[in-house]
Amino acid sequence: MALPAEIVEEIRQIVGSQGMLGRTELAARDPGVDPHNLGADLLIRPTSTTEVSRVLARCQAARIGVVPQGGRTGLSGGAVTHAGEVILSLERLNRIESLDPISRAAVLGAGVTLTVLARAAAAHGLSPGIDFGGRDSATIGGMISTNAGGVAAFRHGTMRERVLGLEVVLADGSVLTELGRVRKHNEGLAVQQLFIGAEGTLGVITRVSLALIPLEGPFATALVAVPDLDRAVTLCDTLQRSGSVTVAAIEIMSGNHVEATTRTAATGEIKALAASPYVALLEVSAPSGADAQLASVLGTAAEAGVIEDAVIAQTEAQRQFMWHVREDWAVDRERPGGLWYDVSVPLAALPSYLASFSSRLRSHDAGLALFVIGHLADGNVHLTVNAPHPISDRYEEIAALVTADLASLGGSFSAEHGIGLEKKATLQRLAGPVKLDLMRRVKRALDPHGIMNPGKVVPD
Amino acid sequence: MALPAEIVEEIRQIVGSQGMLGRTELAARDPGVDPHNLGADLLIRPTSTTEVSRVLARCQAARIGVVPQGGRTGLSGGAVTHAGEVILSLERLNRIESLDPISRAAVLGAGVTLTVLARAAAAHGLSPGIDFGGRDSATIGGMISTNAGGVAAFRHGTMRERVLGLEVVLADGSVLTELGRVRKHNEGLAVQQLFIGAEGTLGVITRVSLALIPLEGPFATALVAVPDLDRAVTLCDTLQRSGSVTVAAIEIMSGNHVEATTRTAATGEIKALAASPYVALLEVSAPSGADAQLASVLGTAAEAGVIEDAVIAQTEAQRQFMWHVREDWAVDRERPGGLWYDVSVPLAALPSYLASFSSRLRSHDAGLALFVIGHLADGNVHLTVNAPHPISDRYEEIAALVTADLASLGGSFSAEHGIGLEKKATLQRLAGPVKLDLMRRVKRALDPHGIMNPGKVVPD
Repeated sequence: MALPAEIVEEIRQIVGSQGMLGRTELAARDPGVDPHNLGADLLIRPTSTTEVSRVLARCQAARIGVVPQGGRTGLSGGAVTHAGEVILSLERLNRIESLDPISRAAVLGAGVTLTVLARAAAAHGLSPGIDFGGRDSATIGGMISTNAGGVAAFRHGTMRERVLGLEVVLADGSVLTELGRVRKHNEGLAVQQLFIGAEGTLGVITRVSLALIPLEGPFATALVAVPDLDRAVTLCDTLQRSGSVTVAAIEIMSGNHVEATTRTAATGEIKALAASPYVALLEVSAPSGADAQLASVLGTAAEAGVIEDAVIAQTEAQRQFMWHVREDWAVDRERPGGLWYDVSVPLAALPSYLASFSSRLRSHDAGLALFVIGHLADGNVHLTVNAPHPISDRYEEIAALVTADLASLGGSFSAEHGIGLEKKATLQRLAGPVKLDLMRRVKRALDPHGIMNPGKVVPD
Repeated sequence: MALPAEIVEEIRQIVGSQGMLGRTELAARDPGVDPHNLGADLLIRPTSTTEVSRVLARCQAARIGVVPQGGRTGLSGGAVTHAGEVILSLERLNRIESLDPISRAAVLGAGVTLTVLARAAAAHGLSPGIDFGGRDSATIGGMISTNAGGVAAFRHGTMRERVLGLEVVLADGSVLTELGRVRKHNEGLAVQQLFIGAEGTLGVITRVSLALIPLEGPFATALVAVPDLDRAVTLCDTLQRSGSVTVAAIEIMSGNHVEATTRTAATGEIKALAASPYVALLEVSAPSGADAQLASVLGTAAEAGVIEDAVIAQTEAQRQFMWHVREDWAVDRERPGGLWYDVSVPLAALPSYLASFSSRLRSHDAGLALFVIGHLADGNVHLTVNAPHPISDRYEEIAALVTADLASLGGSFSAEHGIGLEKKATLQRLAGPVKLDLMRRVKRALDPHGIMNPGKVVPD
């Protein structure tokens, strides 16, 4: 189904020719993480909230689906589009309108990338308080729409906690503007919260106000070999209670992930860590001498048998390499067509959860490999399941193994990558009728004609 | 309008005679902050979610209003009740079901008070991460329903950030149970968020899971005289960036508040501080020697002219007296019938906001006095306006002065005390048609017959 020509013309009247990309231009563009992101015939790039509002009002009248897109770094298919839909890219709403270093608040367009915001904040000794691998492409609007988490969420919360205010255009073109710059605001029902994590199914976030935090550092960074997850959890608790260091990151990786990402480039010292079942990446700051403080904490941990070995970064280059070891996708490059799962588990239950999942997986199909990376302090792990050949069509089959005991442990089948299309069946299977009914009631109340990111998140 | 006798009898079948209090028993009970809280003829005290569910289903069928109550410490009339309504007290849902010190999560009944939870958490070296004056009476369910803030919100967020999961009974008796114990969970539309801050207008929170944080301390505590708010803001920034101390509290009080609360009991040293326009209460911890570290930071601040004088608590009794100076209501006891306003303002704009509000107030009526207390780091101040005689009937008149320039400054007219009945007119005046419409759509979608806390929060 193609878009009616008269609608395309009316949209052109609103956003101008510069604001539209057709099939040919889209074919030349990078679709981002999912090859189907640019499946629609038309991408529009408004430059203002007013333009967004007029486009939505027109699309609702014509019952045309609108799919908002940020940096297209989403991992769950929330930005996938089809012929007959309109892609609404926020890429030209990319201005940092104000940044107040005393109040620690910034007001900006939804299309600003995390890296651009982080750089602007750093000039004032501040930070967005959130960070993850997709930082150069991911936009603030997309991050709010998926309630992004990442490395620092265990201390500064997910995007939901970073948001002070939003401007949102609703399906009918009306504009909700709540761009206050204070943390404490309780001005009636928290309707604004609905748009956080909604993946564009309830409206389009156009502008935001965010809380910033004082920039930390300098950091001491280490890779640490741990014999098992129980001891990784102990290390996590010890570090956070040490009193001498402030913990900025506690990432966890399975040894086979480290083996894959260090194979070609690492020094022998770092490469050797991959022989351990798990490797943690630690980053801390301290009032003075972070390196020495971290070495002291790790020395005590080693004596107690909590860790087996540790390498503290001696240079900025080495520190960056350690992060590369964590963030590199070698595992997916080498064996494409694997599956990603994104769970969180209460920390006390994480070791036993991973032990039983890995045993379920082995009994199910001994040909499948499991790689683990994640944000340890949040109990949030990303599980890559792959094989020498693509297994993309086996998502649901393996999801059943991933989620078997998650709910009873108090964990979540959807930690920080969103539902999109990929996890809709899992949501329908696990959410229960009351939650599903509430989601549908809210969707109907806010988007009665179902034009906002059709088919995503909310099960039919 | 009285409750129909057959309904009362049906409710008795559900909760038993022990679970009901009638007019006579209610007359003997403490109504809490608002004398109208116990205006209904019937209070029921269910002992389980199932009982709550059956009562709500019955009340919805009979179109009877249900007003959930926690500790009745609310300051905005959100718990006020009338004849013909049923009060649903959560006081017997008061069990801490689990407290996992490794995952730092607790699951508990909505009727547990903050003090009881704090004590249980402290036994494991943990804290709820939230604190305020009403701690002994305020319940967790009530705190979530008003998205309580308090002293520690600038570091650990308001209740919204402390909540991991909720169990909520909806108006039709259906039960939403999402009691996961992880911070990262994005399982579709965030319908759960709607109940946080809804003051019982969308459903009844029966059980919750909360995040805990490592217990801090020992603390160094000081009262500090500052010559003006600009310098108080500078002190706030300096402390948070010092690197040597971790700030647990930065409270602010106007000199006249300190004068009132120290008049009868204080030592001369503390009493003398009241001569300053503003006094800050600071509480910090440090890896070692918090007192010395605080003294050093304050010494530097004094040399720079940021503070005028400081008293560091030498004993636990003195520390507690400093908190008493902050939390005592002498100002309201001495001049009853005053008015409270609860605003937050971006920190950079707070000094000029308070200067212009106080000047607006003086020009409006020179007979009115203004007292200020609040949580400085959040820009959240509570403004008491009073006179030698009661002025309770002048709320709206003075609200207009309070809110005159708030929105343009990026502030909020409702920081942490909720809307209840008191701020409904202000909400209607300032929220804008799109926000009001969204609130009504959500209210209708979740409580179509309007039985949940009728007349509160959502303007008609």
